[in-house]
Amino acid sequence: MSSTFTMIGGEGPNSYRQHSKYQGALVEAAKEKINEAISTKLNTDLTSKLANIADFGCSTGPNTFFAIQTILDAVENKYQQDIEFQVFFNDSSNNDFNSLFKTLPPTRKYFATGVPGSFFGRVLPRNTLHVGVSSFSIHFVSMIPKEFKNRDSPLWNKDIYCTGFSKKIEKLYLDQYKIDMEIFLNARAQELMSSGLLLLLGGCLPNGVKMSETVNGMMTDIIGSSLSEIAKKGIIDQKRLDTFKLPVYFAQVDVLKQIIEDNGCFTIEVFEKISHANGEYPLDHEYLTLSFKATVGGSVASQFGQDAMEKTYELVKEKTQEMLPQIAKAKPGFQYLIVLRKN
Amino acid sequence: MSSTFTMIGGEGPNSYRQHSKYQGALVEAAKEKINEAISTKLNTDLTSKLANIADFGCSTGPNTFFAIQTILDAVENKYQQDIEFQVFFNDSSNNDFNSLFKTLPPTRKYFATGVPGSFFGRVLPRNTLHVGVSSFSIHFVSMIPKEFKNRDSPLWNKDIYCTGFSKKIEKLYLDQYKIDMEIFLNARAQELMSSGLLLLLGGCLPNGVKMSETVNGMMTDIIGSSLSEIAKKGIIDQKRLDTFKLPVYFAQVDVLKQIIEDNGCFTIEVFEKISHANGEYPLDHEYLTLSFKATVGGSVASQFGQDAMEKTYELVKEKTQEMLPQIAKAKPGFQYLIVLRKN
Repeated sequence: MSSTFTMIGGEGPNSYRQHSKYQGALVEAAKEKINEAISTKLNTDLTSKLANIADFGCSTGPNTFFAIQTILDAVENKYQQDIEFQVFFNDSSNNDFNSLFKTLPPTRKYFATGVPGSFFGRVLPRNTLHVGVSSFSIHFVSMIPKEFKNRDSPLWNKDIYCTGFSKKIEKLYLDQYKIDMEIFLNARAQELMSSGLLLLLGGCLPNGVKMSETVNGMMTDIIGSSLSEIAKKGIIDQKRLDTFKLPVYFAQVDVLKQIIEDNGCFTIEVFEKISHANGEYPLDHEYLTLSFKATVGGSVASQFGQDAMEKTYELVKEKTQEMLPQIAKAKPGFQYLIVLRKN
Repeated sequence: MSSTFTMIGGEGPNSYRQHSKYQGALVEAAKEKINEAISTKLNTDLTSKLANIADFGCSTGPNTFFAIQTILDAVENKYQQDIEFQVFFNDSSNNDFNSLFKTLPPTRKYFATGVPGSFFGRVLPRNTLHVGVSSFSIHFVSMIPKEFKNRDSPLWNKDIYCTGFSKKIEKLYLDQYKIDMEIFLNARAQELMSSGLLLLLGGCLPNGVKMSETVNGMMTDIIGSSLSEIAKKGIIDQKRLDTFKLPVYFAQVDVLKQIIEDNGCFTIEVFEKISHANGEYPLDHEYLTLSFKATVGGSVASQFGQDAMEKTYELVKEKTQEMLPQIAKAKPGFQYLIVLRKN
């Protein structure tokens, strides 16, 4: 049972495009370190005078454009010669590529292409990629165990996500995560040229911290309990809610590092916590609600319809406001830049 | 003043996808000759074991998938080795790439990418393409002289297209066509590898035949006169209609050949008339109306709105039925396969 998780497309008030500043701020903060990594670690063949750059899980922008431009500038700065750039914007075929294409930066100096398909598998030819990047995407899993969705199973997960209440469920999420990361890393290793770089940006859990102790976990629980109330009111079907589980897993730092090392295709050149002003969400219930609407709202809408999604998020806003004192005490997350060099 | 001309996307009853059998039949009929041309004329470097194929002006399928598969099979058959294929589906950024991506053949053996951008310019890096194809697209021009749209100008074109009534207007269309073909051919020559092939499929006019004497010309005139009636009824604005000109020019065979020879980037390996059962439109007013709705309807709708487009095409259907005796006497067109090898 494969899961898809697509950001809200277009440029409307709920779109990912309008509410992804949180994700974009990380790339901005990591810019210097990305420059440095490309300057000192990129050592691929450029005799063809063509550099291929890909974003895996690009969504609809503008973050992807900024990440790509950051990489492109660094490569251009390093090689100082007449290079052409081809950029591959990859995301699932449910992604709104039409919006992506219409909002491409008009002054871009690269040939833009969209690559539809799950990054849990090959999406580009072998040995063609110089630099790949993936932002806030390696916390996805490709599928959820069927038992999680079955209320009669001992493994039924009452929450819409694994926030750490059940050890058994967390173990199964982690097992799936390991399988998926292995697939992800193997695919990228095949696509990258020898010594090509893979940049990973995103969030994970500090060692020893549970998902339920973070803002991410709290907000997910709020969305889950809002959906439960909506179901009790009969607005959505309880059975349909039982099967609604987010295909997301945030690993702890050392676990993530170990998975990459065990895979063996890459050398870890950089694995750093990136601190920045927008590193944690502001304590603002409207901002929080809109942020988690842009990311999770699309899944809610595709499972329950647009109306039910809107009603759910009205409740989410109320509950978030009530929960602000607890959210204020949430443990900080861990936002990272990881730079991997293909062995 | 640039013009765009986008096929109706999606899979709905008016979509290009549903009404492009006429265009698809040409590729089918030319299949043997395409095989032969690739088998005997393609002589590009394949040491990287990657073959890049592009469709310029792909629209939304299914014709593009069939054309690409035909080329891919021919290349695979010729080289008989472990090659990977990357396919670049190019069309304007107004094209419905979301539909294209969702309907990609599930059993395809290539990495699919979408390339947004006008083919009147570079859309791919230099020296990277093994085979390019463009079907029913080199009859477009990139812009229309401003004077054509101005009722007070001596060059005002009362028709929505150049069907051959005014020599002056036809000359200006042809001048623009020559400029655009030069740009198109130069761009493809830069993108293709040495000895790469460019396949052109489409329709043009037999030598000495006027556009107004063909079904294409007659149908365009019917659409034009339907729009005039709709304007007289006040459903659309006459001034807006005055500026509505299709960015299309069908050259005569020898003119087209001369333009390619004058460009000088390519050797003409094949320039053949392709005859096939669907070569001419059937004498069926519903079929004709739907065919010209799928191709021209999108432009009408984007200029005048969806409602006005529907009303226009109701009239087009009536007028086409009345005109069937004349349409029966139309002069046949000339459908071609042209294979160019980069010098």
